[in-house]
Amino acid sequence: MTYDTTAPGSAPDPYAVPAPLDLRADVVDLTAAVCDVASVSGDEARLADAVEAALRGYEHLEVLRDGDSVVARTNLGLPRRVVVAGHLDTVPIADRPDQPGTPNVPTWRTVEGDDEVLWGRGTVDMKGGVAVALALAARVGGDLTATADVTWVFYDNEEVAAHLNGLGRLVRGHPGWLAGDFAILGEPTAAGIEGGCNGTLRVEVRVPGVTAHSARSWMGRNAIHDTTPVLARLAAYEPRSVDVDGLVYREGLNAVGIRGGIAGNVIPDECVVTVNYRFAPDLTLAQAEAHVREVFDGYEVTVTDAAGGARPGLTHSLAAEFVEAVLGRAGGAPTAKLGWTDVARFAELGVPAVNFGPGDPLLAHKDDERCPVSQIRTCYDALLSWLTKDTSAS
Amino acid sequence: MTYDTTAPGSAPDPYAVPAPLDLRADVVDLTAAVCDVASVSGDEARLADAVEAALRGYEHLEVLRDGDSVVARTNLGLPRRVVVAGHLDTVPIADRPDQPGTPNVPTWRTVEGDDEVLWGRGTVDMKGGVAVALALAARVGGDLTATADVTWVFYDNEEVAAHLNGLGRLVRGHPGWLAGDFAILGEPTAAGIEGGCNGTLRVEVRVPGVTAHSARSWMGRNAIHDTTPVLARLAAYEPRSVDVDGLVYREGLNAVGIRGGIAGNVIPDECVVTVNYRFAPDLTLAQAEAHVREVFDGYEVTVTDAAGGARPGLTHSLAAEFVEAVLGRAGGAPTAKLGWTDVARFAELGVPAVNFGPGDPLLAHKDDERCPVSQIRTCYDALLSWLTKDTSAS
Repeated sequence: MTYDTTAPGSAPDPYAVPAPLDLRADVVDLTAAVCDVASVSGDEARLADAVEAALRGYEHLEVLRDGDSVVARTNLGLPRRVVVAGHLDTVPIADRPDQPGTPNVPTWRTVEGDDEVLWGRGTVDMKGGVAVALALAARVGGDLTATADVTWVFYDNEEVAAHLNGLGRLVRGHPGWLAGDFAILGEPTAAGIEGGCNGTLRVEVRVPGVTAHSARSWMGRNAIHDTTPVLARLAAYEPRSVDVDGLVYREGLNAVGIRGGIAGNVIPDECVVTVNYRFAPDLTLAQAEAHVREVFDGYEVTVTDAAGGARPGLTHSLAAEFVEAVLGRAGGAPTAKLGWTDVARFAELGVPAVNFGPGDPLLAHKDDERCPVSQIRTCYDALLSWLTKDTSAS
Repeated sequence: MTYDTTAPGSAPDPYAVPAPLDLRADVVDLTAAVCDVASVSGDEARLADAVEAALRGYEHLEVLRDGDSVVARTNLGLPRRVVVAGHLDTVPIADRPDQPGTPNVPTWRTVEGDDEVLWGRGTVDMKGGVAVALALAARVGGDLTATADVTWVFYDNEEVAAHLNGLGRLVRGHPGWLAGDFAILGEPTAAGIEGGCNGTLRVEVRVPGVTAHSARSWMGRNAIHDTTPVLARLAAYEPRSVDVDGLVYREGLNAVGIRGGIAGNVIPDECVVTVNYRFAPDLTLAQAEAHVREVFDGYEVTVTDAAGGARPGLTHSLAAEFVEAVLGRAGGAPTAKLGWTDVARFAELGVPAVNFGPGDPLLAHKDDERCPVSQIRTCYDALLSWLTKDTSAS
């Protein structure tokens, strides 16, 4: 990297100990400040320390820490508790699209029409959502009257292997820290509400055969030929579209891999089709598995990977108020989240959850990751109006 | 290897310069002597030198050499010429099945009923055939009157990649050395005649798709699902059995490999089926390719590997006499050779060819490779009766 941290007037060094985060600053400036602290998965300590230190400055918050995850919560004795969560880590830093050789951290800004755009790694996925949560944490239950107790969760290692996921670690180690009636994950949704998520199940369908030299193929049984009905069932399968709590979840049953064959002159004794079932959250994992086994009745089916879905829970009164608050600010009806996300970890704990955050999800992980600052303000305003009694105070 | 070459009375060292080969010795003893010189593919020089030296001892033979291939021929001006060929190399030496830790070279013998059995690497594939040829070379056109001129070919590197094959090298570099009216390859056939060989064609059938995240599978097109008709055509295919020159060749059209898939959450954009067509020698390579393209009409078909078949040529008068001579000694009607063999290299030169040699081909390359010595004598006697005018002299 050619970025020169010693030049006078240069932007901050993303790998240095950062200046204290000012949670009362403008939420867009706070987003930039959070982005400007490099925190690629596994290297979140610098940012987690800054977040923890900033939150400890507010007496209305109880601050907890586990590894590089930080949890802050109000304890106002209110009848309802909301959990707002976001991950601190990003995918690796890339080059700026406009300046090859210069990293896309720290952030920079451009103007597009009436809006300003914040560029750089993390501006979409998902330091905008983190900054919104930090700015709200400083005020909700502090100088602004809260409508619910709130637990703010900032976690590590979302962008890497699932077993490293900080939220998963909290679910296992400190489930009480995540207790609540409704959860919001600040993942990018372009400031729309995406509710729940589909589940995902991966299985291997194994078709047996008997090897033989291909010059005497009739001595064997060709496992690849015998896979024809398996593929035919997949090709003919009509996936469901299911209404769950008012959102429509579209399913899919797809071969994502196929392998068979030993050598160019051998009749194969095995063909394995890897199938991914994306199932609506009206099914449990066990029901999803039973369905797949029924589809491939007569074949050996082995589950290799499974994660349940999450209902959107928008029928809960707290959620309905949230939807109303967001619609009032951002417009747009809630939609179903189709990909599996960490909201399912809340579903495991019985907490309905939605995704709601600034940034176009299609720009996540891209070199030209960037976010219109208006979306950051919209998310902040919508949550503030919902979580506090006097929105004029914002 | 624990074999002790220094022990008094021990068997010869397979890696030492061997004693001169006595081509007038008993043909079974000669087989053992040839087997006892290690000649794993690429290490044939020791045996090729011994073979060349032995053949040069006979004035009726012209001896030629190319690399580790040795060719000896009579030049009697007879109207017909027979080529008898065999490879000098073997697959790697293994442990004796009865003595783990002891290599299966040098050979050893056991008795089974009335027959003796010669054990060890090369006894089947194919030093029995080589020894038969060497023993005959010493006499046919020498002390015994020949019925045809004979070219004896001993070549290297048959058991490894096709481009290294010594016979192929002679076809390319010295096609005149292989000229003849009929050829016999001494590969193991349990002393039966296996005529010609099927051809083999390998193609890749490619099915395209469009990638998408498997959570939004309807945005893509699943190449694996779209491979269903390709497998269905293979499963429904009815291979021919074709009579060529009086022998029946059974064909086969088989998937020998299938691959598709990028990741467990991606709709695959390509699925490739590798298909092997084993075709009867009534088809040329071009005809075989056209047939496969017709079967997979509508799909992209790429030829990756091809080798033409070989007609048995048993309608030739020389061949008919050979069959009669063999039937007189060994019994059993000629059968079609189904696997591709080096006889096809003779077919390239327009020389009809058959396989005929001692040893059960199913024991080739096995650790318990072994040959009933009666088969070695049968092959020797049959060829002698055919190639010489006075069989009583044998």
